[in-house]
Parts: sequence; C-alpha cells; structure tokens
Amino acid sequence: MLAEIITIGDEILIGQVIDTNSAFLADELNKIGIRVGQITSIRDDRDCIINALNEASQRAGLVVITGGLGPTSDDITKQTLTEYFNAKLVLNAAVLEHIKSLLTARGVEVNDRNVSQAELPDQCRLLHNASGTAQGMWFEKNNTVFISLPGVPYEMKAIMTDYALPMIKVAFRLPPIQHYTILTHGLAESAMAVKIASWEQHLPPQVKLAYLPSPGILRLRLSAFNPVDNNGNALLAKEILKLESLIPEYIFGYNDDTLEAVTGNLLRQKKCHLSVAESCTGGKIASMITGVPGCSDYFLGSVTSYSNESKCKLLGVDPESIRIHGAVSQAVAEEMARGVRERFSAEISMAVTGIAGPAGGTSEKPVGTTWIAVSTADSTRAEKFNFGEHRGRNIHKAAIAALFMLRSELIRMA
Amino acid sequence: MLAEIITIGDEILIGQVIDTNSAFLADELNKIGIRVGQITSIRDDRDCIINALNEASQRAGLVVITGGLGPTSDDITKQTLTEYFNAKLVLNAAVLEHIKSLLTARGVEVNDRNVSQAELPDQCRLLHNASGTAQGMWFEKNNTVFISLPGVPYEMKAIMTDYALPMIKVAFRLPPIQHYTILTHGLAESAMAVKIASWEQHLPPQVKLAYLPSPGILRLRLSAFNPVDNNGNALLAKEILKLESLIPEYIFGYNDDTLEAVTGNLLRQKKCHLSVAESCTGGKIASMITGVPGCSDYFLGSVTSYSNESKCKLLGVDPESIRIHGAVSQAVAEEMARGVRERFSAEISMAVTGIAGPAGGTSEKPVGTTWIAVSTADSTRAEKFNFGEHRGRNIHKAAIAALFMLRSELIRMA
Repeated sequence: MLAEIITIGDEILIGQVIDTNSAFLADELNKIGIRVGQITSIRDDRDCIINALNEASQRAGLVVITGGLGPTSDDITKQTLTEYFNAKLVLNAAVLEHIKSLLTARGVEVNDRNVSQAELPDQCRLLHNASGTAQGMWFEKNNTVFISLPGVPYEMKAIMTDYALPMIKVAFRLPPIQHYTILTHGLAESAMAVKIASWEQHLPPQVKLAYLPSPGILRLRLSAFNPVDNNGNALLAKEILKLESLIPEYIFGYNDDTLEAVTGNLLRQKKCHLSVAESCTGGKIASMITGVPGCSDYFLGSVTSYSNESKCKLLGVDPESIRIHGAVSQAVAEEMARGVRERFSAEISMAVTGIAGPAGGTSEKPVGTTWIAVSTADSTRAEKFNFGEHRGRNIHKAAIAALFMLRSELIRMA
Repeated sequence: MLAEIITIGDEILIGQVIDTNSAFLADELNKIGIRVGQITSIRDDRDCIINALNEASQRAGLVVITGGLGPTSDDITKQTLTEYFNAKLVLNAAVLEHIKSLLTARGVEVNDRNVSQAELPDQCRLLHNASGTAQGMWFEKNNTVFISLPGVPYEMKAIMTDYALPMIKVAFRLPPIQHYTILTHGLAESAMAVKIASWEQHLPPQVKLAYLPSPGILRLRLSAFNPVDNNGNALLAKEILKLESLIPEYIFGYNDDTLEAVTGNLLRQKKCHLSVAESCTGGKIASMITGVPGCSDYFLGSVTSYSNESKCKLLGVDPESIRIHGAVSQAVAEEMARGVRERFSAEISMAVTGIAGPAGGTSEKPVGTTWIAVSTADSTRAEKFNFGEHRGRNIHKAAIAALFMLRSELIRMA
C-alpha cells in the first residue's frame, strides 16, 4: 500500500510555517504498514490542488490532505474537493450544532462563515473534529481514498487517531502489525549495528529492525509484520528479551518514554528529591525536568548561577576554588553540586559548569569544555566533557549528558 | 519567477525527521522576490528523483534540491543528477584536498567513499561547502536552473547564503527588493489590521505588507518591490516612520531581533543586572535569556523554586504568605521577586508563579492561572494572567509575558 500526503497553505510556501503535520502523518501511516511515497506542499489555489490530487491518485491508493479548511476566504480546499468529486454542499445539522456549542463556549458569536463550515460535500463521510470547527472528510474515487483534515496540528492529530486511522485499517484490510521501540544511549548507530549484528541476522523473517538516531539517543524500533496466528506481540517480546540481555547497560526506556520522564520515575521509585545547579546550561535542565507533568513529586528546584558571585553566595562555592581552578573545573562543579543539594535539602543533586560559547574559550579550555557533577550524601562524582563549538548544541548535549549521569547514579544507589 | 523545492530522503517519508530546510529555502527565495509554487519530498530512489525533476522543471524556472549527497550507498542524488544531465563524474582535486583537510582535522581517516565525494558532474558549477564534505552543485537545462544542496541544515544554509543566493540574483536578473520587519506585541492580527488600516491603504504601490503572527508576537513585514531609482530603503524608511508614530507602544524590535535579545540589550543600556525566580515556568525563562550569546553581561542567575520550602528558604518568601494566599498569589509572586533581587544583588528581577497543569487547578484558581512580578529597589509590581489549559503552552506564554513585563519596567525606568 502506497500513500501520498498533500499539505495545502500559502504559509508553508512562503516559509512562515514549518510543516510538522507531514512527519506525524508519515510516522502514523508507516506504523500501520502504509509506505508514504511522496509529500507535496502547494498553495491555496484551485488549479494547484486539482493538479496535485490527480498526480497523487495516479501513484497512490491513499491520499491524505491537510489544510485550507478554515473559515476565511483564502481557504478553498473544501470547495475544490466538492468540485473534484462532483459533489454538492449540504448543511449538516449535527455539525452546525457542534460548531455553535464550541463557539458559544469560547464566547464567540456565530457568523455566516462559521455556518458555512457546517456545509459538507454530499459525497463524503464525516470525520468528526471534536475540538474544532473544520471537519475532516473521507472521499473515495477510482479505488483511491482521499482524506481531508484541518491544518491545526492538534485537531488534525485527534481526527487522524480517533477516526481516520481505524477506518484506514478496515478499508484497506491491513495485515496486523506491531511495534516496540527500545531507547538506548552510549553507542552510535554504527557501533550498535556491530554489537547486535548476530541478533539482527537471526531475527524471524516477519520481524524488522529500524535504527532511529537523534542527538545522544538511539532508538531501535522492532516491527512484526503480518505474523502467523497474530502472535506479533509474543514474537517481539521474545526478541526484546534477547536484546535486553545483549545490551542491558545501554537501554534506558521503551516506546514513548523520554529521558526526563524515565529519570523522574527513577527518582520517584527511589524516593529521592532532586535539586540542580546550572551555569552554562542556563536553566535548560530544570526546564526539561519541569516539562514532565507531576515532576513536583521529586523536583525541588534549581539555581542558575551565571555569575561567579552567585556561585559563591547562593551555592556556597569557595571563591578560592574559582580563583585557583577557574569556574569551569572539577572542584567548582563538585562544590556547586554539594551546595545545591544542601540548600534544597535534596537527597541527590547535579551541577553543570562549562563554556557554551561562542566567546570564553581558551586553548586550555576551548568552547564546549564542560564539567558535570552528581552529588549524594555518600559521594560526589564529576566528569569532563568536550561537546563542540555550537552554543545551542552545547547546551542541549550538556543537559542530556547530565540527565544520563543522574540516571547512572540512581541505578547505582541501593 | 516561480521556483520549486525538492527534498530527497527516506527519513522524511517515514516521519523520522521534520523537513525544516524547505521553510528556510522558501523564506530566503521569497525575500529575493522568487515565489515558491510547490515543495515535494521524495524517497532516495532514482525513478522518483527523475520524475520529480521532470515535473518541477515543467512548472518552474528554478529547482532547489536538498538531500541525498552523503557518502553512504543510500545517497544517490549525485549519481541521478549526473545521469539526468548527461554528465560524467570527474575528480575535483581542490575538493578532494578540502575533504581531506576537513576529515583530518576531525581525526577521521579518509576512505574511498570520501574520495568519491570529490567527484563532481562535469556539467555543473561547484557551490563550495566550507564546513562539510558534500558539495553543492548548479546545473542548467532548457532554461531551468537546478541547485543541489546537502541536507544537513547548517551546511545547506551556508552554501545557500554564501553562494547560491548571490548567483540566483545575477542569473535571473532579479529586480531589487528590500524588506524591513517590525516586531509587535499586544494586538492580535485582526485588531492590528483595523488599527493600521488607513496607513496600509495609502502605502505606495511598490510597497507590500505581510502579517506574520506567532504566539504573543506579530511581525509586520514591509517589502519594496522594484522601486523607481532603486530607492526601496528610503521608501520603506518613510513608511516605517509613519507606522512607528501610529503604534509606538506595540513595537519592540526590528528584523531579526528576538524578545530575549531586545530585552537583554535594554538591560545592558540601562546598566541593570537581572535575576529571575521561577516556579511554574521551571527554568524556561532563564533558558531563553541564556540562549543569547553575551548574556552574562546582564544576567546574574535564577532560582527555580518548585517546592514551597524552597520558595521560603532560598527566596525568603514568608511561609505565612503561602498559608494565607497560596503559592500562586500576588503576595508570593512579589516576595519571590524581591527575594531573588536581593539574593543576587540585582538591580531588577522578575518572578513567576502559576499552575501549569494538567493537575493542581481549582475552581478559584484554574490551570493556567499565573502571577508575574517585576521588582526594582523602587517598586514591585505584579499582574495576573490566565493562559489556558495546555501545560507546554502555559509555560511558553508565561515566559513571553514575563519578558514583556520586564521590558515595560525597563522602559519606564529613568
């Protein structure tokens, strides 16, 4: 099964908006076994839309279209689809009620344009948009299915997940497919491939492996395609057990886990409270940790000590340590970690001090030099890293490395 | 002049990577007066590439291609272009030297695959990639220009900016075009349109206005197209003066300014040092401020006080204030701001306390309720906001609002 995605909207073609919808759609379609052959972005223009629909339907059995369903005059997707499918617009009373109740709840008066959003082509099946006024639509023509979705990401995602994907599975009688993703850290893609080569070669023919690398993290996605007796999950479980025994020290999570959430759960399990001292990461680590709902169970807080004075005054770093070793040093990282642990009465803490750049580097301590320390009542350990030359990437890499050091320490604890 | 963009790479079509390159390219092309008619993402597949090149060149005078130029066997863009243009690959000695010196500096041994990256089609003009091994290429065929660039964003951007864009301007004899962007805050797109309607109606015919909205910030881009006597900048300056007198209180920056950098420059000008106390924003504000190179000139640091105890112990908040008014209250916001200003010996400070969600809301203080305070030696002011229900968006909106409150206070200062 081959699909194509068409995104409609001038804002993409003038570079004002990055098209994130297509990546979501492509990922979801791949997960149910549908390959995406092409993604096409076009303007809000009748001829362009019709041309794109014609071209895509010649190549694909499924065409997913996003955008151009808003209430303003530049949004012409619905009119163009109505023409393309020789349909006519009919007012849907249930949709009108839904739109009215949505807008009333927001304190917005219902106008003619909103009413016209309740008119749908008589050839389509409705895909309900629970949180918006633009409805999804499902068309069929010459053995191709066309799905039209609004461009607002969270509305598009909800319609896709709740209605379109289940209907696609039925319509195309897709064979069952299961996925399981293992999150690893510590081996690059090529090194991991060597390490697990024998296991990979002996995978059953229905099980496929994909390497999904991102900075500091390598995800391994196992998929079971159309297994005999529908035993895909059992097949995957067996292979994952083997993989876990092969690379236990590199695995830190599964499926939709994030590093922040996994580390947070470890803190919760160990009944440990965390505090953080940040210099070069400037609040990034605290921001990542507090992005996880419920983090107040284990996160007490942090100090961003951007000046030497604040390192001494708020964290109790000895001014002599800074004078002798410099602010980016093992001694200062350790004193920051100890200081922030004591001040927040935390069981565990971490501290980061480094040179994010672009200025501040020396030949001895070039931009990217970073010390990270983790401290408990029993011990304080520090490690030196050299991340590189780019400020934004240095901050990101230091935050990831600090979270992995924290995780190691938590695992080591009794 | 119409252009199309083709991005090549399986990683986009499986949804592993979001295509950010196309937005950059579309923005840059629009800025020099070239309209982008279509963006097409295809797999690393010979037939797909040739088909996409044929289709795009029938519609556009310029085709910009990214991706598929890496050293591994799945990257086939260069071979396919060589075939498409009836060219043959020839080793370029200068490029080989460049690749060798790059890899040697990284401590990587040069292998056959790297050497083959120095082979270029004899029909193309070289677009030098200063920071990578995959070179850019410029082809011409039947009055269409084809530009092939690597998919690594920072390499692609550098080649585009340094070589491709200047060459495009010459090759297509593009009429001069100038842009000037005004950054505003405080009016939504529709309200701004009403406010500046009369000014907009009287713009000279060569000057066009575009509204570019994003959360909390509305950018107004003025462009002068092909003005008489090449006086575009003068034309724009005249109109911007009028606009500035119309909406002075809403303008906070120009062109590539960011809110963080603009506020940072104000702090520098006023010789003020800043400290920040964060609760619900959890480090996000500090992280935004420290994303600006050179921020150590004015940023001393921050405390993320996620627990009530840390609000009292590290910031000196009175436990009675929390008991009587709750942690999310005017009193606590003001005490946090005063406390963090004094502890860092800062001239100015801000504090944020709110309910980011999803849990923690009450009927009196629903999720999204946020108090923001700004404090100086002379005064401490606080304001209440209601941002909404989504944790991530609440954190982002609170950070933006806090920076705007800080900016207002700095402007008010003598």
